[in-house]
Amino acid sequence: MTAVAILGAAGRMGRTLVELVAAADDLTLAAATVRSDSGWIGHDAGELAGCGRLDVALTGDPAGAAAAAEVLIDFTLPAALEGNLAAAVAAGTPVVIGTTGVDATGEQAIHRASAQVPLVYAANYSSGVTLLRRLVQTAAAALGDDYDVEITEAHHRYKRDAPSGTARALGESVARGRGVRLEDHAIQAREGIVGERPAGAIGFQALRGGDIVGEHTVMLAGDGERLELTHRASSRATFARGALRAARWAAERPAGLYDMNDVLGLNDRAPD
Amino acid sequence: MTAVAILGAAGRMGRTLVELVAAADDLTLAAATVRSDSGWIGHDAGELAGCGRLDVALTGDPAGAAAAAEVLIDFTLPAALEGNLAAAVAAGTPVVIGTTGVDATGEQAIHRASAQVPLVYAANYSSGVTLLRRLVQTAAAALGDDYDVEITEAHHRYKRDAPSGTARALGESVARGRGVRLEDHAIQAREGIVGERPAGAIGFQALRGGDIVGEHTVMLAGDGERLELTHRASSRATFARGALRAARWAAERPAGLYDMNDVLGLNDRAPD
Amino acid sequence: MTAVAILGAAGRMGRTLVELVAAADDLTLAAATVRSDSGWIGHDAGELAGCGRLDVALTGDPAGAAAAAEVLIDFTLPAALEGNLAAAVAAGTPVVIGTTGVDATGEQAIHRASAQVPLVYAANYSSGVTLLRRLVQTAAAALGDDYDVEITEAHHRYKRDAPSGTARALGESVARGRGVRLEDHAIQAREGIVGERPAGAIGFQALRGGDIVGEHTVMLAGDGERLELTHRASSRATFARGALRAARWAAERPAGLYDMNDVLGLNDRAPD
Amino acid sequence: MTAVAILGAAGRMGRTLVELVAAADDLTLAAATVRSDSGWIGHDAGELAGCGRLDVALTGDPAGAAAAAEVLIDFTLPAALEGNLAAAVAAGTPVVIGTTGVDATGEQAIHRASAQVPLVYAANYSSGVTLLRRLVQTAAAALGDDYDVEITEAHHRYKRDAPSGTARALGESVARGRGVRLEDHAIQAREGIVGERPAGAIGFQALRGGDIVGEHTVMLAGDGERLELTHRASSRATFARGALRAARWAAERPAGLYDMNDVLGLNDRAPD
Repeated sequence: MTAVAILGAAGRMGRTLVELVAAADDLTLAAATVRSDSGWIGHDAGELAGCGRLDVALTGDPAGAAAAAEVLIDFTLPAALEGNLAAAVAAGTPVVIGTTGVDATGEQAIHRASAQVPLVYAANYSSGVTLLRRLVQTAAAALGDDYDVEITEAHHRYKRDAPSGTARALGESVARGRGVRLEDHAIQAREGIVGERPAGAIGFQALRGGDIVGEHTVMLAGDGERLELTHRASSRATFARGALRAARWAAERPAGLYDMNDVLGLNDRAPD
Repeated sequence: MTAVAILGAAGRMGRTLVELVAAADDLTLAAATVRSDSGWIGHDAGELAGCGRLDVALTGDPAGAAAAAEVLIDFTLPAALEGNLAAAVAAGTPVVIGTTGVDATGEQAIHRASAQVPLVYAANYSSGVTLLRRLVQTAAAALGDDYDVEITEAHHRYKRDAPSGTARALGESVARGRGVRLEDHAIQAREGIVGERPAGAIGFQALRGGDIVGEHTVMLAGDGERLELTHRASSRATFARGALRAARWAAERPAGLYDMNDVLGLNDRAPD
Repeated sequence: MTAVAILGAAGRMGRTLVELVAAADDLTLAAATVRSDSGWIGHDAGELAGCGRLDVALTGDPAGAAAAAEVLIDFTLPAALEGNLAAAVAAGTPVVIGTTGVDATGEQAIHRASAQVPLVYAANYSSGVTLLRRLVQTAAAALGDDYDVEITEAHHRYKRDAPSGTARALGESVARGRGVRLEDHAIQAREGIVGERPAGAIGFQALRGGDIVGEHTVMLAGDGERLELTHRASSRATFARGALRAARWAAERPAGLYDMNDVLGLNDRAPD
Repeated sequence: MTAVAILGAAGRMGRTLVELVAAADDLTLAAATVRSDSGWIGHDAGELAGCGRLDVALTGDPAGAAAAAEVLIDFTLPAALEGNLAAAVAAGTPVVIGTTGVDATGEQAIHRASAQVPLVYAANYSSGVTLLRRLVQTAAAALGDDYDVEITEAHHRYKRDAPSGTARALGESVARGRGVRLEDHAIQAREGIVGERPAGAIGFQALRGGDIVGEHTVMLAGDGERLELTHRASSRATFARGALRAARWAAERPAGLYDMNDVLGLNDRAPD
């Protein structure tokens, strides 16, 4: 059993994490924190998450959480990051960092802390998306420019921007595999008389409809054959599952800064 | 055995038709014509098509072809259409009209001739595309605006325009099913901050790559479920096969003007 | 606003229905019943469904529910069906019947009641599956035996039987379109030296994995082209949504026995 | 320009190779052989291949071909293999070996010859299939048993066996990635009450229909997400293109025994 603390346990991702920790055979919830001025302090973390009483009262104390747990999972806001890292370093506890929107100062704090404790820091904790990016890079490198790349994503009708951040990240994986820069080859939309496809182009299409959680396909089309590499997310809980996978992995590691490629064992083979 | 004459037997589609007629158990090639000033006159139609000698000499004589055949398949240019129809009417022979780019005068000639002989006239002789258009119209009518429609097509890297004519035709089928006009709802491309999807929008995406012959998918995405209706063409011969299906069908019909929906038996149920 | 009563409001489907009625702009919850010996009697229906207090106390009284509502949705067990129908007839209230496992006596009761009130009775209330069955029947009839049919379904790893009931129903739609019997043409699995594909065969494949809610594809493959008609369910709520669609529709109908084809407007065109 | 000799130029693959060499900007046809008792000796290789006169007369002399060329592509029968290898060694010419059905004696001859000249020897020269096998192995290793694997293949209606050799090879890639043996985990077909999916199972499904050249999908389905990795072959020429890619690559290599993973640059990263 690995003892986990969830920092940011009242947020959407935090509640999902509490629920999944409670359901896991090999994990136990050692602590759960909210903001120090939150009205939830003292409430039971399981009841808040909707999975039944866990006898873990919510606190505003990351230092206590770090002391009680074998690994921290931090899905708080950037303002809380440095304090949480300090608590982790003081207790020698590994951290999975799910905070987004970290600025340069925050990134320096991450680098400093990684000299003393293991940190996993990734933009996207989905195992499938992390793996797909690696597969796409390998495929683009092996097949070269003779295979035309088109990236298609689909999301629910409320998504306001296009293409998705994950689609752009997949485009970067293609570009890295080919040794070029994405911005020199991206084609965002086709309409009217567009002429023949430019050699080396990386095309993007965005579909919107219904309540699709998120789907991405990278097609590499040559003469007489093609590959289609697809990821389908059907539940947002998949990101929480990836963070728990990272937590189990980080609990056994030496100090250092890691990403999801490390967690999935992809970096033994193909370091970035 | 049905005796078929091919008008325009030296063209790309004409040669494919000759080859498929020669291979069919229930069809025989009665005649094959080229332009009256063509250097191919007198050559064997089968040898020109690359399927071996058929002992049918190419002529420049549509009237003779109409007299010799039970059905004509006309894939000539618009300038030849009226003469070919006159020959068909004189001989009482049905015609499958594959000529594209017919102007208003030509369409009037088609309507006049259809009072005397059966004519099949369709923009696209693919059975699959004809059927898909009908299925899409039925689906759009049944599901209504709560299901978001996205039309995605993929073609080879040399295609110069986007979206394809078939994709637009599918969009028209959606609009007809909903009782709206396509031009009021079509969205051709998404890039940047596009905001939430407008209710009733019909989205189009065009992929280009490799040597893809032509693929079309219409997605209707609601809450909790979606339909994806896909057509994949793997060979251009599929259009010639559809024209032969129309020829077999037309040979047994009374005078009248028909389209591929009639050939496929779709109009008994759902007349346009 | 249409006033709806939910019979069987403590079951899984009943709770989802209560939640969706509460969220709908054009529906209001008039009553909700449970078994007359249930401990839930007197509790608030919305609180039980997890969507907040609705001020509708659960009762054991279908007659009162029928009197209070413009339409009943019945997802109780077969033993309750006849009493519920009698209540509906007495009050002149339409019913959407979601009960499964109805025996011959129950079916006779349904037929009798349909002479006096509108009844919708369907095995599957998914709009998408109902529509897909109709599209598949149309496609099989139009394309004929030259197009080989393969039906592929995918479900979660806990599903114990194969193929799914919906896959079989799709096979029956193919058979009906072709005018044959499914049991004469079904092929359930291929392994080893199976020889060439028999003409007219209807193939079935079943994939199992992860937490897939349910996906079905019917492929019709000819020479040079193919159609793939796919339904993807991403949430079990899609069945409740279809039942609500049926309820809105039934509230405006004359007495009679209807199914989901009627609700979707498919029977104007292609009666069974 | 690389000078290529085709051994077995009258066979189906041989003719396609001649045609593709003639069309390539960077390759020239130096020689083409047939069996020494063939009636084609003395005919022009291009005319036989149907791509027009190339002024390369067919011979029955592999030694002469090896002396004239910078690389040999051998698509003859196993009986000719040892003689062809001897000719290649004598002339110091690299060989791409496309012969199938090589026995143990033949394989020893290949190993011996590879000490003196570069040899590429692969069961399948498709770049896409080779790459897909590698991607699948990487994915299976990274995701582990929590992701259920299903392998689905589709081929034309005349294919007599199931599943395809490529599907089995993909299953072996999954097994290798997981560190297990395929025969302990393969499930070939599901029908009836099969119970819950066994942990670690590798499922196979085979679709048959129309004139599908060959399609393979490996699905890895977890909770809340899945990957689908698909290869679609649309033309048998894709195998000849892969062999030419191997020939260009082999012409620049030192002596040794290589496979398509080497040609695609996949073995720098992940040696078998």
